[in-house]
Amino acid sequence: MKLLRYGEPGAEKPGILHTDATIRDLTGIVPDLAGAALHPEGLAAIAAADIDALPIVAGTPRLGPCVAGTGKFICIGLNYADHAAESGMDVPPEPVIFMKATSAICGPNDPIVIPRGSEKTDWEVELGVIIGKPAKYVTEDEAMDHVAGYAVTNDVSERAYQIERAGQWTKGKSCDNFGQLGPWLVTKDEVPDPQNLKMWLTLNGETMQDGSTTTMVYGVKHLVSYLSQFMTLHPGDVISTGTPPGVGMGMKPQRYLKPGEVVELGIEGLGQQRQDVVADT
Amino acid sequence: MKLLRYGEPGAEKPGILHTDATIRDLTGIVPDLAGAALHPEGLAAIAAADIDALPIVAGTPRLGPCVAGTGKFICIGLNYADHAAESGMDVPPEPVIFMKATSAICGPNDPIVIPRGSEKTDWEVELGVIIGKPAKYVTEDEAMDHVAGYAVTNDVSERAYQIERAGQWTKGKSCDNFGQLGPWLVTKDEVPDPQNLKMWLTLNGETMQDGSTTTMVYGVKHLVSYLSQFMTLHPGDVISTGTPPGVGMGMKPQRYLKPGEVVELGIEGLGQQRQDVVADT
Repeated sequence: MKLLRYGEPGAEKPGILHTDATIRDLTGIVPDLAGAALHPEGLAAIAAADIDALPIVAGTPRLGPCVAGTGKFICIGLNYADHAAESGMDVPPEPVIFMKATSAICGPNDPIVIPRGSEKTDWEVELGVIIGKPAKYVTEDEAMDHVAGYAVTNDVSERAYQIERAGQWTKGKSCDNFGQLGPWLVTKDEVPDPQNLKMWLTLNGETMQDGSTTTMVYGVKHLVSYLSQFMTLHPGDVISTGTPPGVGMGMKPQRYLKPGEVVELGIEGLGQQRQDVVADT
Repeated sequence: MKLLRYGEPGAEKPGILHTDATIRDLTGIVPDLAGAALHPEGLAAIAAADIDALPIVAGTPRLGPCVAGTGKFICIGLNYADHAAESGMDVPPEPVIFMKATSAICGPNDPIVIPRGSEKTDWEVELGVIIGKPAKYVTEDEAMDHVAGYAVTNDVSERAYQIERAGQWTKGKSCDNFGQLGPWLVTKDEVPDPQNLKMWLTLNGETMQDGSTTTMVYGVKHLVSYLSQFMTLHPGDVISTGTPPGVGMGMKPQRYLKPGEVVELGIEGLGQQRQDVVADT
């Protein structure tokens, strides 16, 4: 299933992309794509619904982030060997984790907003893993039982804030509109191998990132298990699993986003995003 | 006002500590101590209520975290010069920020749970600042308009996870029950000078931390303004402003928590916490 949320920011409703390419309203089935609706039982209830009979959503509404109630937006650093190399860093001996503020989360086509004074806003296409069932101390074999599905994320990053402004990356990762999520939560049954998905990002139509999750260092099962040793993962939590090469910071000369530019990105089977780059006003 | 939440985890109700030392139920006034209830208008509605007429809460219920709906649990690192020294680090040229998972938040007297395999679980008494009104690009002069009040926090930290397990502190800061918050949200009108509060922490009755917010490097106004340059602060967000000297990591030899020990901590005017240390099962 391709689950989504549509409507104005803060007032999104749950929906599903039907096989006839219409969006159908899921309000009668689940209150939102959050919490219990993401549990296996919640997803089963959606799967059991007669989608043909659900109301068609008219027009082309704004899409919001594809899940709500995200308590943790956990990112994995340097999780593609080539990206670590372009960043001038080694592949870490175990996953590097950091948090993005959940207030950074926005819809897949919402603009990238360059913070006031920022000169180094950068892009990162990433595979997002959406947790569906609480996970604590789970093994790799158990990990997938706790995953609801996947979504495209753009881990937008301000490199000066991240690296030059006194310790800890979160500062450059948490600005408003720095976490596009969606268009869809694609349930895991439609993604048989999350470690073999092409992923790409263009800037003004020019390819910047052209990678695949095949080169991910620590895979989805390992990450879910690993993180669950440190903290309970809850339904709606998002794990953004790192980015392949091709970010602006890794270029010579470095290249950062400017107002008026357009970023597009996508992952095989998970849809795509399109963002206008705007200055904060 | 001393606002609190009482009841079992996940089912807490809003309450207020009355001047007669009883807890009064605020359910009829606000649905919870979250979101709009923390706005100036929400707090004014509570202040205008006839507290004497509100139901007395019987017995001594468990206290939950004193606010709900926390989207961000932002911590400030090395924000006391003496603590930076005991950690072997310099005072940073601007605030160091990192995130604790909001899933770490628990009640003020809930146990400190040592994660499986952990050998370096440590304590940190901190002044928590509770945001009441959205803050973005605010000045220091404007900052206090966006603060609802203050609370004691224990920024429990696993030092091996934080420092020895591959980059970024969040890994050692985000374990379950690593963020005791409360007992009360003390509204700012009762805390005329947040930069002059005594704070302390004992382990098994022995004083470990005995400090004051007078030695905080970056004060509350600066922190609210500073953080708001990077991201919007929302009602219920918590800023934990750093710890004074006396953590276990800074001792010679280092000293870490063991099951069966008891941690007590408090801040002048903000109440105190008491935690049993237990092993995760």
